[in-house]
Amino acid sequence: MQPEKKVFKYPYTYSLELGRELHGFELAYTTYGTRNEDDSNVVWVCHALTGSANAAEWWDGLIGEGKYFDPARHFIVCANVLGSTYGSTSALSTNPDTFEPYYHEFPVITVRDIVGTMDLLRQELEIRRISVCIGGSLGGQQALEWAIQAPDVFDELILIASNAVHSPWGVAFNESQRMAIESDPSWKDRNPEAGTHGMKVARSIALLSYRNYDTYNFTQARDNPDQTDDFRASSYQRYQGDKFMRRFNAFAYWTLTKVMDSHNVGRNRGGIVHALGMVKARTLVLGIKSDILFPVAEQQFQARHIPDAVYQEIDSLYGHDGFLIEYKQLSQVIKAWQESKGRLEPLSVQ
Amino acid sequence: MQPEKKVFKYPYTYSLELGRELHGFELAYTTYGTRNEDDSNVVWVCHALTGSANAAEWWDGLIGEGKYFDPARHFIVCANVLGSTYGSTSALSTNPDTFEPYYHEFPVITVRDIVGTMDLLRQELEIRRISVCIGGSLGGQQALEWAIQAPDVFDELILIASNAVHSPWGVAFNESQRMAIESDPSWKDRNPEAGTHGMKVARSIALLSYRNYDTYNFTQARDNPDQTDDFRASSYQRYQGDKFMRRFNAFAYWTLTKVMDSHNVGRNRGGIVHALGMVKARTLVLGIKSDILFPVAEQQFQARHIPDAVYQEIDSLYGHDGFLIEYKQLSQVIKAWQESKGRLEPLSVQ
Repeated sequence: MQPEKKVFKYPYTYSLELGRELHGFELAYTTYGTRNEDDSNVVWVCHALTGSANAAEWWDGLIGEGKYFDPARHFIVCANVLGSTYGSTSALSTNPDTFEPYYHEFPVITVRDIVGTMDLLRQELEIRRISVCIGGSLGGQQALEWAIQAPDVFDELILIASNAVHSPWGVAFNESQRMAIESDPSWKDRNPEAGTHGMKVARSIALLSYRNYDTYNFTQARDNPDQTDDFRASSYQRYQGDKFMRRFNAFAYWTLTKVMDSHNVGRNRGGIVHALGMVKARTLVLGIKSDILFPVAEQQFQARHIPDAVYQEIDSLYGHDGFLIEYKQLSQVIKAWQESKGRLEPLSVQ
Repeated sequence: MQPEKKVFKYPYTYSLELGRELHGFELAYTTYGTRNEDDSNVVWVCHALTGSANAAEWWDGLIGEGKYFDPARHFIVCANVLGSTYGSTSALSTNPDTFEPYYHEFPVITVRDIVGTMDLLRQELEIRRISVCIGGSLGGQQALEWAIQAPDVFDELILIASNAVHSPWGVAFNESQRMAIESDPSWKDRNPEAGTHGMKVARSIALLSYRNYDTYNFTQARDNPDQTDDFRASSYQRYQGDKFMRRFNAFAYWTLTKVMDSHNVGRNRGGIVHALGMVKARTLVLGIKSDILFPVAEQQFQARHIPDAVYQEIDSLYGHDGFLIEYKQLSQVIKAWQESKGRLEPLSVQ
């Protein structure tokens, strides 16, 4: 069953949370599988910082034929988020007011804008119920925000390695990455390659937060005991930066790291605990023990304040990146939780 | 008692570990207090990445009048390391072969070269015995290496938040920082300011490794709950980068991060365990529970393989930076260990 790739075109003015307006926007989205008449099989996947609408590509151990979320049974939807670079409206899109690309004039957007525009796509598709909304990292931030904005839409919510408010530590990591982009003199240019070399450095910084000491020990151990230079850990940082340069741009990177920084479900809602109390979906919150960017205390906090939420923890050598790697554990935990109808007792799954 | 600031000038050729030669070098050093006739009160302090010979300034809670290492009782020596920027021979020094500054032609040096040149200063000062050699982080790497190179010189060795071989994770952090320097186009210039803006980014990356999630939560919490931008964590990263730019240079930063990367006491010595077994000094190894850059497993490893070494752990909100902050705990642990003549049982001090 082939994925269907489409573009949702919204022709009206969209008012952004921080005051500016978009005069129309587009969201690229992909669907997999066939939708039930009663929408009982709709799975909406929210992607993370550098993901795309093609969920079966970047989450291929969880989504696809024979996987836990299977197009043979589910109707899976994933939209590229506003501000990203894989087909949706972003800084590289033409500003309808000037007929030129936005570049640096693209407005600062928030998770609420990403979710607001995504909800307009849902309405366009006339999806009344979403059976499962799932996301990790920035994807989990969206899924949670959405379940607060539209509490009656979701049956189940699965939040992985994510949080209710972005931490000062997360902000500091993102700020260092934006400093790297800014220190690239090309960042002031008005072309799609602006800041690309700085973004390469940004990616190498981000990797440090996605993994941890043990991951590097295991995957990037030195080649010989008497080595004095050209360590594998060094070439890994460079290689990953170079690879990323070829598939992303600094504008989208800037936009979406700012989105993470301002993520706070409690903003103008009487605080975070109150906001979490608004979730009506049955919720599974998943933490990864070795995650240094979104430590498990953040997921435990979510689970404590989302009504009847269940917290589960997995282990991984890969830290935060575990949400893109530990498919077996993720599938097992989600299956056990779904089969228990959300009543699964908290436990640590090895 | 005023510190005495002097410069050791070595006029001969010094052969570096990796094959190149320095045609003479200088080391700036500072002494505090009065030396006993039998050298029984000599405390040698090894500084970390961005430190100087003025130990009573950057380690002011541990060294100085009324502090645990007190010039009233001890003769304290600290030398600015080869390659650093506070008075010793570095990339900004004049290359005697060309009569111009070395800049990018400064050789790649190692911890062994730092220690080798420092030992020549010791010999010049005719110090036969060092009562205590102490260092944290890169300073601990030097102290350990020195105690292996010259095992009969030291009575006591105190290694804080350090390791026997630099980890792939540490190398990856340093590599990202050097990538930031390289991406500054001025880095190719032959002047002392080359790469300074890139080094600002490098410093902001390094800070992330010196602290941790909890540190930022505590010290850089957001100013108000509904804030969407200009977070304290962001301005902190920038402020620290700017501050550092005014006191360091990218050449020294490059040189000394490379020194850390190649640190490996086992190199050409039949391995790390064998090298650690060569230490004759009574050794205290101190770990900081929250250190993500030099996790306590590294200090436990040192203590396990250095004969009769004692491992002690302190706690800190400040992660690796705790070695520059937790003076009360450091003094208490060192005092208890010294009073027990190195027989203190391992225990965790709160």
